[in-house]
Amino acid sequence: MGILVVGSVALDSVKTPAGAKTDVLGGSAMYFSVAASYFTDVSMVAVVGKDFPQEHIAFLQRKGIDASGLECRQGSTFRWKGEYGSDLNACTTLDTQLNVFADFSPKLLDTHRTLEYLFLGNIDPSLQRSVLEQMKRPKLVACDTMNYWISTARESLLQTLAKIDLLIINDGEARQLSGESNLVRAARIIRGMGPKALVIKRGEHGALLFNANSVFSAAAYPLEEVADPTGAGDSFAGGLMGYLAATDSADDAALRKAVVFGSVMASFNVMDFGPRKLGDLTFPEIEARFREFHKLSFFEDITVASAKSENIL
Amino acid sequence: MGILVVGSVALDSVKTPAGAKTDVLGGSAMYFSVAASYFTDVSMVAVVGKDFPQEHIAFLQRKGIDASGLECRQGSTFRWKGEYGSDLNACTTLDTQLNVFADFSPKLLDTHRTLEYLFLGNIDPSLQRSVLEQMKRPKLVACDTMNYWISTARESLLQTLAKIDLLIINDGEARQLSGESNLVRAARIIRGMGPKALVIKRGEHGALLFNANSVFSAAAYPLEEVADPTGAGDSFAGGLMGYLAATDSADDAALRKAVVFGSVMASFNVMDFGPRKLGDLTFPEIEARFREFHKLSFFEDITVASAKSENIL
Repeated sequence: MGILVVGSVALDSVKTPAGAKTDVLGGSAMYFSVAASYFTDVSMVAVVGKDFPQEHIAFLQRKGIDASGLECRQGSTFRWKGEYGSDLNACTTLDTQLNVFADFSPKLLDTHRTLEYLFLGNIDPSLQRSVLEQMKRPKLVACDTMNYWISTARESLLQTLAKIDLLIINDGEARQLSGESNLVRAARIIRGMGPKALVIKRGEHGALLFNANSVFSAAAYPLEEVADPTGAGDSFAGGLMGYLAATDSADDAALRKAVVFGSVMASFNVMDFGPRKLGDLTFPEIEARFREFHKLSFFEDITVASAKSENIL
Repeated sequence: MGILVVGSVALDSVKTPAGAKTDVLGGSAMYFSVAASYFTDVSMVAVVGKDFPQEHIAFLQRKGIDASGLECRQGSTFRWKGEYGSDLNACTTLDTQLNVFADFSPKLLDTHRTLEYLFLGNIDPSLQRSVLEQMKRPKLVACDTMNYWISTARESLLQTLAKIDLLIINDGEARQLSGESNLVRAARIIRGMGPKALVIKRGEHGALLFNANSVFSAAAYPLEEVADPTGAGDSFAGGLMGYLAATDSADDAALRKAVVFGSVMASFNVMDFGPRKLGDLTFPEIEARFREFHKLSFFEDITVASAKSENIL
């Protein structure tokens, strides 16, 4: 099944303890699409300016991403500048130039209206709904948002949340949206707003999936080096939706595996700046890391006897 | 196999968003012993003052804990006063009165010297070594410490670490001890100091186990209400050591299950003040929560087909 993603494509300037890069390819729709492209067909709807380098278009095409919905308008591409300190969970935005993204009003091509999996990246909730209204009848709609929309467009966001299946946000956003610091209670409140399932991303602490009758806690991959966390959340969403669309499933077992594939893609993404590592993977590498995640959190259930091996004594 | 634990027994006054309690039974050796008592025989070595209520001794005896090593000296019992805000991971110590604990110099009874599992609670590293020297030949020695000893008695602590099998500390202590913020690198440095295995506790984010060739990430139980986090780390250590001693095993599979039993006991402990909940469990309840932990982090490996059920669509 194909996925449609609507969001940003940007040129990011990022400084982290591992280095600094200027005008690298960024944006939520880009990170999502590259991650999802390993699983299924992806079409992106986004906007860039006339200054957008042709090499980036070529990169997206090499990844098999349908960029026919990537509008190129008069003006400059969305630019974001940020800096991460030694606590890579916290980022300081130094500059945001929306440029052509300020007037982004997604118009879907006919070929996009019939896609069955839809990811609404972090844009104005009213634009998210305008995309939904242009779709024929998507099978699964997932959505992201951010602190800015939660505080400035809450009513509009609630209207969007009433129409989606799956919300993918971070722990800070979940607390802000619900007004509740305990994540179990926050999840219940948020699921009451509409989404049947909720994924709460917790950076280096992994992710939680709240579903009708179950909670799933996914570990984060214990990396020794993180070059650049930018795009981790969108890579996560891309891996997650990519797996669901590829298998055309959304039961509890599939959602759990999808959250792990999301964690896999995020763990690759943070290993280099921009989509350098994320864009340079093979599916066997992705499967191998999935198996490492399985090993990372595996323990025998209580009824199974321990096999004696590798005694630390 | 029996366990010997050396640490504190205290009277705690604790304030949390859930309420406030004065002079409740506390201390590292107490929380550890109560948690471990569900798994195996536990003997504690600690000191209290003449003011220590007889009802607390009776409680320990009801839990089947050998308190023959609980010395009662002239003076007052160790008292600690602390307050937790809405972020239950952070605690402010309001008052510490060491009292008889200031001169604590553990003298082991002959019956204790031959025990095979030893837990050195958070006391002066030189006292930890004096306990080790009094033991005949323990099979597994685990140890805790804290920021105070890492900064004021580092050389002594390093001498202790060289002699132990398993170190159980929190993430802040791991970073401070190693001088390294990345926990994977921190774990390698700390294991280089002596401990064959390292468990890093991360509060509401679970725990990590670093072993010779493997890393295990255990989830924390998603609780809706936390009454009082005091003693969570010691309950964790008690459940962990209790399982290892009961099964007389320390291979990777056993250590992983032990970390989960530790998480189980900590999750019960924080549900009420002092050892009220922790001391009032049945083993079937403990097993049931272990199974909930298994379900919480379970996902199918990549080779297993998904069973279709509970589709969110």
